[in-house]
Amino acid sequence: MLRGRRVGFALCASHHNLDTVLGWVERFVAAGADVYPIVSHSVATVATRHGTPEGWIRRLEAITGRAPWRTIPEVEPIGPKRLLDVLVVAPCTGTTLAKLANGFSDSAVLMAAKAQLRNQRPVVLAISTNDGLGLNARNLATLLNAKHVYFVPFGQDNPDEKPNSLTARFDLLPQAVAAALEGRQLQPLLVTP
Amino acid sequence: MLRGRRVGFALCASHHNLDTVLGWVERFVAAGADVYPIVSHSVATVATRHGTPEGWIRRLEAITGRAPWRTIPEVEPIGPKRLLDVLVVAPCTGTTLAKLANGFSDSAVLMAAKAQLRNQRPVVLAISTNDGLGLNARNLATLLNAKHVYFVPFGQDNPDEKPNSLTARFDLLPQAVAAALEGRQLQPLLVTP
Amino acid sequence: MLRGRRVGFALCASHHNLDTVLGWVERFVAAGADVYPIVSHSVATVATRHGTPEGWIRRLEAITGRAPWRTIPEVEPIGPKRLLDVLVVAPCTGTTLAKLANGFSDSAVLMAAKAQLRNQRPVVLAISTNDGLGLNARNLATLLNAKHVYFVPFGQDNPDEKPNSLTARFDLLPQAVAAALEGRQLQPLLVTP
Amino acid sequence: MLRGRRVGFALCASHHNLDTVLGWVERFVAAGADVYPIVSHSVATVATRHGTPEGWIRRLEAITGRAPWRTIPEVEPIGPKRLLDVLVVAPCTGTTLAKLANGFSDSAVLMAAKAQLRNQRPVVLAISTNDGLGLNARNLATLLNAKHVYFVPFGQDNPDEKPNSLTARFDLLPQAVAAALEGRQLQPLLVTP
Amino acid sequence: MLRGRRVGFALCASHHNLDTVLGWVERFVAAGADVYPIVSHSVATVATRHGTPEGWIRRLEAITGRAPWRTIPEVEPIGPKRLLDVLVVAPCTGTTLAKLANGFSDSAVLMAAKAQLRNQRPVVLAISTNDGLGLNARNLATLLNAKHVYFVPFGQDNPDEKPNSLTARFDLLPQAVAAALEGRQLQPLLVTP
Amino acid sequence: MLRGRRVGFALCASHHNLDTVLGWVERFVAAGADVYPIVSHSVATVATRHGTPEGWIRRLEAITGRAPWRTIPEVEPIGPKRLLDVLVVAPCTGTTLAKLANGFSDSAVLMAAKAQLRNQRPVVLAISTNDGLGLNARNLATLLNAKHVYFVPFGQDNPDEKPNSLTARFDLLPQAVAAALEGRQLQPLLVTP
Repeated sequence: MLRGRRVGFALCASHHNLDTVLGWVERFVAAGADVYPIVSHSVATVATRHGTPEGWIRRLEAITGRAPWRTIPEVEPIGPKRLLDVLVVAPCTGTTLAKLANGFSDSAVLMAAKAQLRNQRPVVLAISTNDGLGLNARNLATLLNAKHVYFVPFGQDNPDEKPNSLTARFDLLPQAVAAALEGRQLQPLLVTP
Repeated sequence: MLRGRRVGFALCASHHNLDTVLGWVERFVAAGADVYPIVSHSVATVATRHGTPEGWIRRLEAITGRAPWRTIPEVEPIGPKRLLDVLVVAPCTGTTLAKLANGFSDSAVLMAAKAQLRNQRPVVLAISTNDGLGLNARNLATLLNAKHVYFVPFGQDNPDEKPNSLTARFDLLPQAVAAALEGRQLQPLLVTP
Repeated sequence: MLRGRRVGFALCASHHNLDTVLGWVERFVAAGADVYPIVSHSVATVATRHGTPEGWIRRLEAITGRAPWRTIPEVEPIGPKRLLDVLVVAPCTGTTLAKLANGFSDSAVLMAAKAQLRNQRPVVLAISTNDGLGLNARNLATLLNAKHVYFVPFGQDNPDEKPNSLTARFDLLPQAVAAALEGRQLQPLLVTP
Repeated sequence: MLRGRRVGFALCASHHNLDTVLGWVERFVAAGADVYPIVSHSVATVATRHGTPEGWIRRLEAITGRAPWRTIPEVEPIGPKRLLDVLVVAPCTGTTLAKLANGFSDSAVLMAAKAQLRNQRPVVLAISTNDGLGLNARNLATLLNAKHVYFVPFGQDNPDEKPNSLTARFDLLPQAVAAALEGRQLQPLLVTP
Repeated sequence: MLRGRRVGFALCASHHNLDTVLGWVERFVAAGADVYPIVSHSVATVATRHGTPEGWIRRLEAITGRAPWRTIPEVEPIGPKRLLDVLVVAPCTGTTLAKLANGFSDSAVLMAAKAQLRNQRPVVLAISTNDGLGLNARNLATLLNAKHVYFVPFGQDNPDEKPNSLTARFDLLPQAVAAALEGRQLQPLLVTP
Repeated sequence: MLRGRRVGFALCASHHNLDTVLGWVERFVAAGADVYPIVSHSVATVATRHGTPEGWIRRLEAITGRAPWRTIPEVEPIGPKRLLDVLVVAPCTGTTLAKLANGFSDSAVLMAAKAQLRNQRPVVLAISTNDGLGLNARNLATLLNAKHVYFVPFGQDNPDEKPNSLTARFDLLPQAVAAALEGRQLQPLLVTP
């Protein structure tokens, strides 16, 4: 299903998920996908205990054979040149979720999403945010119903200590993307992460 | 926890859930709750293959010892007289969810909820609607974050055939109401029904 | 300011305010306004301890010399015939506020408002609702910014017992209407009722 | 394209458009569509200078060979029995637009739409409302982006006298429905009626 | 109409429209307007194939005789000193539209708009965005109804390839601004660009 | 009430209020509170006629004995380590209000609020914004009803010249925080500043 597909893979700064997501980028490449990496400003500039910007970027380049896009001008051609069959945002932070739902395109990741939606092509979100059932829930609701937007199934990752936190089941990325390429939302949507 | 508590129990017209809910009204009474039944206009007037209005009302009276309230004037005293410790809406249909989230109080059930919220006291919703993850999702999101509103944990009841449908786990009604009486949302919120 | 002005006066079912509002209808007539009364379905059909439908309607007729409009077809000509210079909704209940903000026109009062706004002419709301700072606050916010919509200054009428309740200062009706006829919102908007 | 398709045709009370719409129902039948008529409560009960309820219903029966559905229980089987390939709402009034966008299903027409969306099948709206660019614009915006919802191209029918009024180009009904059956929105969306 | 008027002219980073808009700034000056230029951070810092920041700024200075404002502190006096009769945002990008509708004022252009609205004076938007009928449509709807906000008539610029894209008819800038100065929205609003 | 409480105190760039707020930080410390200062990017970097970044930071350090947090990584531990009993945002600008209501967490102040809400602990907002009754009113409405969010009572500070401007009564900060620590909103909410 993924063989030969041009997959944009945008990574946002939920740093503790980056290593997991990179493992999935590798599997997408192994499955024959043609992956175009994109990194958010924070991933491209902020070092954390999970890794350094240089480390993330080097690994992405090694896996995909491409230098990640990081600026708005770099991603803008996704629109007019129809570069991508599908765009994945993983991890998708709360702020990116909020901005996408509200029509903001002031970052490379968001402009990539806007460019992809311009072409009425799928965007797949793998969320990871503490307020998914909190103040961000209305944005989630808006995007659940938005044309051409799909989600990696998600659930509460720690309902006792962070009751509003939602995290995608990253292991369902391939199936969710495959479904989105067919215009379908992978079901069930609500799962136990 | 429920002993001696004054529990308003409002039933909306998700007719196929009424029998189940009536079972829970019985258990609330058995647990010592002082139950005040309320029925929506549809429950009070529409016969379906699941039962007749007279049947539902007779059973409610037999269980609770009270004739169900069905009109706006009947429920208005909930506000100034502070009649209820908690108000349960079960089943809560999509339309009632939508109206509550948007500030409508044009039915007995909604006016009861408004009167209860006026007193900053808890309202507990046990939803059952085909569009909970569809066009109603934004209303759900609004109410998840609304002060004094709580939910009986819910999930997708048939993700393959009705992917946007959500149904409460009615068997969690007692725990959800007990938590709400303490100002807490029962967790986990997202469950498999 | 009001002399010769054609003022629609729509009364909704905040029954305990009806007597006060009728006093203001009288003063509008005394000030030379040409008043067209409109009553909501509830005012036209529900008797309360504050009065009977017949009583309200008889008084309105006596004051204005006109039988109140009560149906959608009766108020529709407000649009194409441009019958009114200003439309007052007093008292404006929470449900009417919510419906107006959300584009509903399924009652005579709301259709009158829609017809008036169609002509880009002023609608003045004198609210009275227990959830003005609660779930109805977003509707209030929407209408505060809506073109051609104005408010009679309002405030918390009982912040200790009903902290979300808002009520208009009905004694400011003439000034608020006069300002609206000039395209201005009477200030200050937030007052102590 | 329409031959053999099961088309629900829901008529709302924008009475002055009913005659036009009936002409299109005839053409759908002539094109081989299997039409299931639905009428709103207002169409089914209110006589206007444009026609009587009996007249509309008789004509619909004559054209389609079916008695129009008018109650919620009558339309509910659209969901579980998957009765329709596409549902058209024409004319779609402002109130129906607002209710659909906000998750209300308290009428036969809205319940039909909810049942259809439950099945992830297309709903096509042919709007006619004075406040399409006014307070109803946010609902229009919500539905423009809602999955499985499509529009008959629309525009301002009288920008000088009713600047916020929008009306569908009813003559584009067949093309809009054909596109929706393929999962596409007919373009251009914004036209001169 | 424009003679002697103090017109703020804020340019956002829809770079391919900047040259066109500068032509209109010239015509405003030629018509006797006193133009105060404002540039967004992106216009002030990002070079594209359409031009350089220095180039845009030099031309604006040459045309208006004023160095463009580019920082929040520079535009804040618009509020207390009531510097502008009208503020034009042209081109207005999707992000600026979204931020304005949602109450953000974290840029010079947005702070200028906030300062102008503080004074209840007109802001005129000439939009150019790929998602005007997409996720940005709700923001557009909010602003269509916002007091003191007006639009240069707009339409779909490429409905086949970018069906959600909207662009203002920049040639209508003078008429739209003249109407806004009279408190009117230029009509028709929906046009073919 | 404040003795021994760990109070986060986040200052946003409503620069003319900073001096007043610092006076209240002093009184919180004098009352025995353990204050953790946080400054927005603008407070930390922009000099105005009201003071310099160095000046504000030096005073905060002198008062609280702590170097203010200014980056997202610095405030993130508020969540998992449960560092604060209450978080105060004073002054809370319009943009911060808007971002919080819409689920943005792209600044130190907002991330602190998100981390605190993650723990279902109180956030208290002392607003100061020119558009509180304007385009920001819907955000205010959303937050008025959001769980764990409280407000310092506010009102119109200059209804004649800035009719949509709202400012908190900073002198009520101690009472508002004390109420929030008990899960209550200080009343009356609407006051004359």
